[in-house]
Amino acid sequence: MKFTFVTLFPKLIEPYFYDSILKRAVEADFISYEFYNPRDFTKNKHLKVDSPMVGGGAGMLMNCQPLFDCLDKIKEENPEAYIIFPLAAAKPFKQNDAKRLAKKKNIVFVSGRYEGIDERVIEKYANELFSIGEFILTGGELPSLVMADAISRNIKGVLGNADSLEVESYENNLLEAPSFAKPEIFQNLSVVKEFLKGNHSKISDLKFQMSICKTKYYRPNKEKR
Amino acid sequence: MKFTFVTLFPKLIEPYFYDSILKRAVEADFISYEFYNPRDFTKNKHLKVDSPMVGGGAGMLMNCQPLFDCLDKIKEENPEAYIIFPLAAAKPFKQNDAKRLAKKKNIVFVSGRYEGIDERVIEKYANELFSIGEFILTGGELPSLVMADAISRNIKGVLGNADSLEVESYENNLLEAPSFAKPEIFQNLSVVKEFLKGNHSKISDLKFQMSICKTKYYRPNKEKR
Repeated sequence: MKFTFVTLFPKLIEPYFYDSILKRAVEADFISYEFYNPRDFTKNKHLKVDSPMVGGGAGMLMNCQPLFDCLDKIKEENPEAYIIFPLAAAKPFKQNDAKRLAKKKNIVFVSGRYEGIDERVIEKYANELFSIGEFILTGGELPSLVMADAISRNIKGVLGNADSLEVESYENNLLEAPSFAKPEIFQNLSVVKEFLKGNHSKISDLKFQMSICKTKYYRPNKEKR
Repeated sequence: MKFTFVTLFPKLIEPYFYDSILKRAVEADFISYEFYNPRDFTKNKHLKVDSPMVGGGAGMLMNCQPLFDCLDKIKEENPEAYIIFPLAAAKPFKQNDAKRLAKKKNIVFVSGRYEGIDERVIEKYANELFSIGEFILTGGELPSLVMADAISRNIKGVLGNADSLEVESYENNLLEAPSFAKPEIFQNLSVVKEFLKGNHSKISDLKFQMSICKTKYYRPNKEKR
């Protein structure tokens, strides 16, 4: 998998690949990444990449020309480019998307800045639009990284322990039960007693019940979605 | 606002403050940040901060001792510490939370790694738990940054243009209408014609209608939540 990040601020993204799991994934060649900066494509003599909105409105938008030229170049270089725009106003990115997208060869994330991106860029180039949540960020860089991280975990080899991947939150559409690490008692705080008795079918049943409770509490509408 | 990040991987977080809006916010003293590494607090002679799960289960959990000692120290140094754990299994973080939390003096984000964190740490220290979405990440570092970014935007002074803050997605519980930047026509692609006629009440009405359509399409259950 190659991740291509289109961003005015590559320095906000690149260091995330310098440590921990994604660093190892890059070193082991499971993933790679590259950057394109729309500013390198602008024909504006002051190197501007934004314009005022048509029809009025506060703030500036990333305009067509630099992004059209940048994305044309990317599509020329990467015939399998699959282009994603992280946008506040889009469908929510979910674990199943992370799994599905892990099978792509090249994913391109286009990060908006300022008040966003001219809609014509999105209409012309987007393969898919995602929101990572109902909140507003300073740009698309963090959502791009969030998706790249969630997708990477689903690429074969990236996580050493294949077991870990399977038993996690959301995997069975239920939230994960509380977990406890050794020691059993720390500063007089004990783990759930049943966990100590070693009856694994009982523990597993208890965890399942706790998962259901947690899911009902935190995601009351889960079954309706 | 001081952001305190508790993480085994400070290098994954810190560079995000080196550029763009958050860099300026730090320079102008609207926000500051610091790091605590649980590894600096472990009493394990091999500097381990994780243990196997009690009651069985694949993978390792961050255990109590380093986090208890680390968080005790933080609370001692920051009497106003408000401690947040980003967890996959928690209530969703939303724009209203970003606004509300922008009024705090010190927010502490505790990033889990491995299979998560011993539940006793969460029970003892958490002021609030948040999920940033229904997907699984390699650790709590990106969700911590996402929340810090969303909160920072709501701190007075961080965004130069106060106008920008108000008209954005989610602010009125509707998704933002499509926006267009100059020029009006680019490579034969025109903006929505009505936007060109300069009737601002008509444009504003049209944007409102498009917002409603977009919200119905992308958030069909919005009114029910």
